[in-house]
Amino acid sequence: MSAADRTERPAWHPAWLPEAAFGPLGARRVLVAPGPDAGPVGRTVVDELRAATAQHGGTLTVLDPPAAPSPADVRAHDLVLVVGPADAPAGPEAFDHRREDGTTVVVAGGPAGLLYGMHAVVRDGERAFGADHGPRHHRPVAPVRMLDHWDNVDVHPVMGQVERGYAGGSLFYADGRVRDDLTRVGAYARLLGSIGVNAVALNNVNVHATEARLLTDGLGDVARLAAAFRPHGVRAYLSVSFASPMTLGGLPTADPLDADVQRWWAQAADRVWAAVPDFGGFLVKADSEGQPGPFAYGRDHADGANLLARAVAPHGGTVFWRAFVYDHHQDWRDRRTDRARAAHDHFTPLDGRFDANVVLQVKHGPLDFQTREPVSPVLASMPRTRVAVELQVTQEYTGQQQHVCYLGPWWSEILRFGLAEDGTRTVAQIVSGLPGSPASGPPDADPLPAAGVVAVSNVGDDVFWTGHPLAQANLYAFGRLAWDPDADPVALLDEWVDLTFPGADPRVRATLHALMDDSWRTYEAYTAPLGVGFMVDPLRGHYGPNVDGYEYSRWGTYHFADRDGIGVDRTRATGTGFTGQYPAPWRDLYEDVATCPDELLLFFHHVPWEHRLHSGTTVVQHVYDSRADAVDVVERLRQHWADAADVFPADWHARVGERLDEQLRSAVEWRDQVRTYVYRKSGVPDAQGRPIY
Amino acid sequence: MSAADRTERPAWHPAWLPEAAFGPLGARRVLVAPGPDAGPVGRTVVDELRAATAQHGGTLTVLDPPAAPSPADVRAHDLVLVVGPADAPAGPEAFDHRREDGTTVVVAGGPAGLLYGMHAVVRDGERAFGADHGPRHHRPVAPVRMLDHWDNVDVHPVMGQVERGYAGGSLFYADGRVRDDLTRVGAYARLLGSIGVNAVALNNVNVHATEARLLTDGLGDVARLAAAFRPHGVRAYLSVSFASPMTLGGLPTADPLDADVQRWWAQAADRVWAAVPDFGGFLVKADSEGQPGPFAYGRDHADGANLLARAVAPHGGTVFWRAFVYDHHQDWRDRRTDRARAAHDHFTPLDGRFDANVVLQVKHGPLDFQTREPVSPVLASMPRTRVAVELQVTQEYTGQQQHVCYLGPWWSEILRFGLAEDGTRTVAQIVSGLPGSPASGPPDADPLPAAGVVAVSNVGDDVFWTGHPLAQANLYAFGRLAWDPDADPVALLDEWVDLTFPGADPRVRATLHALMDDSWRTYEAYTAPLGVGFMVDPLRGHYGPNVDGYEYSRWGTYHFADRDGIGVDRTRATGTGFTGQYPAPWRDLYEDVATCPDELLLFFHHVPWEHRLHSGTTVVQHVYDSRADAVDVVERLRQHWADAADVFPADWHARVGERLDEQLRSAVEWRDQVRTYVYRKSGVPDAQGRPIY
Repeated sequence: MSAADRTERPAWHPAWLPEAAFGPLGARRVLVAPGPDAGPVGRTVVDELRAATAQHGGTLTVLDPPAAPSPADVRAHDLVLVVGPADAPAGPEAFDHRREDGTTVVVAGGPAGLLYGMHAVVRDGERAFGADHGPRHHRPVAPVRMLDHWDNVDVHPVMGQVERGYAGGSLFYADGRVRDDLTRVGAYARLLGSIGVNAVALNNVNVHATEARLLTDGLGDVARLAAAFRPHGVRAYLSVSFASPMTLGGLPTADPLDADVQRWWAQAADRVWAAVPDFGGFLVKADSEGQPGPFAYGRDHADGANLLARAVAPHGGTVFWRAFVYDHHQDWRDRRTDRARAAHDHFTPLDGRFDANVVLQVKHGPLDFQTREPVSPVLASMPRTRVAVELQVTQEYTGQQQHVCYLGPWWSEILRFGLAEDGTRTVAQIVSGLPGSPASGPPDADPLPAAGVVAVSNVGDDVFWTGHPLAQANLYAFGRLAWDPDADPVALLDEWVDLTFPGADPRVRATLHALMDDSWRTYEAYTAPLGVGFMVDPLRGHYGPNVDGYEYSRWGTYHFADRDGIGVDRTRATGTGFTGQYPAPWRDLYEDVATCPDELLLFFHHVPWEHRLHSGTTVVQHVYDSRADAVDVVERLRQHWADAADVFPADWHARVGERLDEQLRSAVEWRDQVRTYVYRKSGVPDAQGRPIY
Repeated sequence: MSAADRTERPAWHPAWLPEAAFGPLGARRVLVAPGPDAGPVGRTVVDELRAATAQHGGTLTVLDPPAAPSPADVRAHDLVLVVGPADAPAGPEAFDHRREDGTTVVVAGGPAGLLYGMHAVVRDGERAFGADHGPRHHRPVAPVRMLDHWDNVDVHPVMGQVERGYAGGSLFYADGRVRDDLTRVGAYARLLGSIGVNAVALNNVNVHATEARLLTDGLGDVARLAAAFRPHGVRAYLSVSFASPMTLGGLPTADPLDADVQRWWAQAADRVWAAVPDFGGFLVKADSEGQPGPFAYGRDHADGANLLARAVAPHGGTVFWRAFVYDHHQDWRDRRTDRARAAHDHFTPLDGRFDANVVLQVKHGPLDFQTREPVSPVLASMPRTRVAVELQVTQEYTGQQQHVCYLGPWWSEILRFGLAEDGTRTVAQIVSGLPGSPASGPPDADPLPAAGVVAVSNVGDDVFWTGHPLAQANLYAFGRLAWDPDADPVALLDEWVDLTFPGADPRVRATLHALMDDSWRTYEAYTAPLGVGFMVDPLRGHYGPNVDGYEYSRWGTYHFADRDGIGVDRTRATGTGFTGQYPAPWRDLYEDVATCPDELLLFFHHVPWEHRLHSGTTVVQHVYDSRADAVDVVERLRQHWADAADVFPADWHARVGERLDEQLRSAVEWRDQVRTYVYRKSGVPDAQGRPIY
């Protein structure tokens, strides 16, 4: 990179879209035919191509007014991108891609498909212009691919501006209002469009007073934000408070069956869509951790969700209704209560009662984004409901962007997990409305309810977007896995590396694979063991170890360690019965300590310290060994990174280096506390004789 | 109380100075001769007497211009209050008190003594006008009787406005500045004057940015606050930041040996005393929990304290320098480090190096205001230094004014503890510059360095001043014990009851004694056992139980419980050596587990769970029993209070009742968590078979 490049660079990192990534495409003869309905997304594609070809010495032909390119047009170009109609694939987001007589042809079902097709060519780099091949069909598996921003307009005194944010302040808000300059929001939207994200919720699901008013006084600003996302195929949503008719509307109730309340929401929706005609809809956290909801009026969550759904339906809007409902004033003395059961207990009886424009948004695990949890059984228990799975890109429980923790492998496990239909239908298939494999049910049945994949964003106004530069890969992998859950997360790392560091020394890729491929399992190995979860420090916002931090709390997150053993008995036989919420084979596989996977053992069973794992070691020795081994890994990686200083940009190297120092410090803290805690309780010495305090 | 009285009552409770308390005095023929130098305090006495006699049907004669009352004057009055000079006792705060031929005569050494003498008559009520008796000499034991306010001008995002305050906002500050209306500050000053408090620090020892400017821009407001305290004999002090020359003065350093820094402080002092000619001085928390201090410049705390002392000396000012210096980034893995040692290690080598107008302010225990700690050995280790003992009236670690916890007995134990000179010289004697009993040293030796007793205030803008109405008694007892450490704390409760509820049903006194007499020991019995300390919840600001809450933290507050035992080995033989900081006999008495008192056993020793206490029970069974018994006590007291609804004012009864509900809930939480924790570690069942979780 030249000195001139550096001085022109904006005040944020280009992430996976540096100009150089457009080099192979930009050096070619390109033809684009965005079609008669190109709209803002089509114009984005044209603008991207124009900039790339200008920068890299290629040419651009735009067929405008719209026409189909002739065979001669095609032959005269290296790359042709067109929106149907003739041989267009089904759906505006889909595209087909072939190489024919030395020309790469992308045929899209609509402007969004054109955008995604263009970025597929960018990702392929020089490979996009290699040997001929027949059509390859690309369409997103999940219709909904959404990022939720837990951003507050104001700075919350405890949570800061971005709740569970680890990358500075909000991209959207500053000084108590929407930013005047939304240039960077546009750059963010461009990144999202390039990986296929098509929806974004603009504010925190915990809706505080200032943020509630986005729905009323703030609509002009919401429209400005929506306009920044629109050219990249991303629709805007708002998180709303269920109590809005009272807090904003001055009504005496927010009862979903009250006619005035219904009228208030309908009018609110009218105003929103008048300001933003392509607005997406609402996201709601109700009756959850103190947020208001329908329970206050003796109504259930179908009543609550349908209230909003009917208000937004005339506008084509959707309501995302979170299933994260549980008793957060639990009594640790009562071992019969089990927070893991809560979502299933609350929502399964309501299956079939939600309107068609309601999506039930279910956290991937029954607890709360832990490093390791089983998949939530709710995802399989509501066949007549549109269900989305919610992931957490922001690393609340996975190192808070201080630790390297590439989450692609974790999400891949979740999305590909065969939860339903005797293990044949994956989570990705469930949330996308796809049959299991082999396809189940009669072929002409009603379409399966479809929604998609949602995640909590990890970006902020940090120069690297994500605090830890390597956490950019999590955002990237989220979008790509939502598009294609069968993608290999390690291969996605290659994509991300090649885009982020075009033409870099091969040691860049090798170093990043070494740091990142197993980083999630490494993080797991020095934190809470064997699926038991939590053990994080409530005082430090869930960062760092505190083995008993939630043990006597109201949050329902216990491990029940005593001098004899550890773990939560969630069996039907002797425990909370949570295993009974699963379909076969999982209900029995998890029930039996002999078949329960090691990594989930303490989630499902309370076992003696000297219980022997399938791996052959005991629980207590596993705790001792894996924590020590994982710290050794972090130490090696830190050295590895230090040795690679010459092949990374200096700012990257410095920032990642600082974070690795902190990761090592924290990993040692985890190791020593968990090992010491377990030793003080179990009294079993480490077979290796390593220090315990 | 009549309806008229109620409507005229100001927006706060009169505490121990209701009008009715002045009834016996106010009905008499009173003569007052405040002397030629009456000043504002003398005028306060005259005003009080005028109001009381007007209200209660007596008469007041004021000898003004000053003259000595003639024998005829004396005989013509029931009560005569005069300021010397003829037979005046030594010192302006002292007074003598006799009853002669049916006249009560108070002879004071100065206006303050006159004020204290008048309040002594108020306290005595009708008894003040009983049988004749000869002169009784009253003088304060401690020259300094000071309350530190940990009040912030701004509301701190975590600590709130009053750090460790449990009674609402600050009396002094609102809306980011000193209140316009200081009427209530005057009422507070009057309460302090009535119990002999003679100094107050106006702002938090953790000096944040806004509060630092009280020393500069805020001097006009400081003068207004000082003026509110002045008529009641209370001098104002400011907490200052050691970094002020940099943060306020723009200097590049705050090095105490730097001439510019010395000049800056001298000029700052000049400005302060120009604004407040009788200003008291500065209070400093340096090199403590993140506050700046001399260590940053390689200087010691004598250098630091003397820097400020020399700036204030020309004005007669005093510097209170806190000894609360320890490493708050401690490593829990390192059992050789011991926070209890820190103050002694830091300060004892500096004995003799502090200027005469420096007072070293030492927390009563080596840790931090725990419910039970040994007395700090620093109090005995600096014979050439003026040392004050610091108590905590605000109930940070003693129930946060949600729990009844009358601290008089605890402070009485501390002040009367024979720490020095082979157990003969008490803490009160040390801090007051008095010899031990029997007097030690040559009679004509230099005067012993004297300072006094300091405490952190417990008041706020709550209508009852203290949140929990019964916590008023702690403020009362603090002042009275600082005046006379030999006072019986249970008798002080009688004083407080009689003043607060004049002429009340005898059940009032009986009920309050039942609730309060043993409340400190009851609180101890359901919280951290046997002197081990902490076990409080960091997340709830030290409220409620969290047995491991500080166990793996940087704060140096550990109990080291494992499956074999619990406690901190602070012996010289095998532990941290802290016992060696004590003089005889304590150094040996604490060293030996056989002679260490039960209530401090786990402070000094790590013992097996089944170690047998002097009381005859084992440690583990003591934990089980005392926690269960203490909860039973709280339950009975709550019932007792409910039964006394008819004899208390309704607002008192309701407020105390709410707090007792919370106390019971919290005590149960403590009981269940501590018992369960100990059982999970020890595996020893409760001999009584009560529930453990």
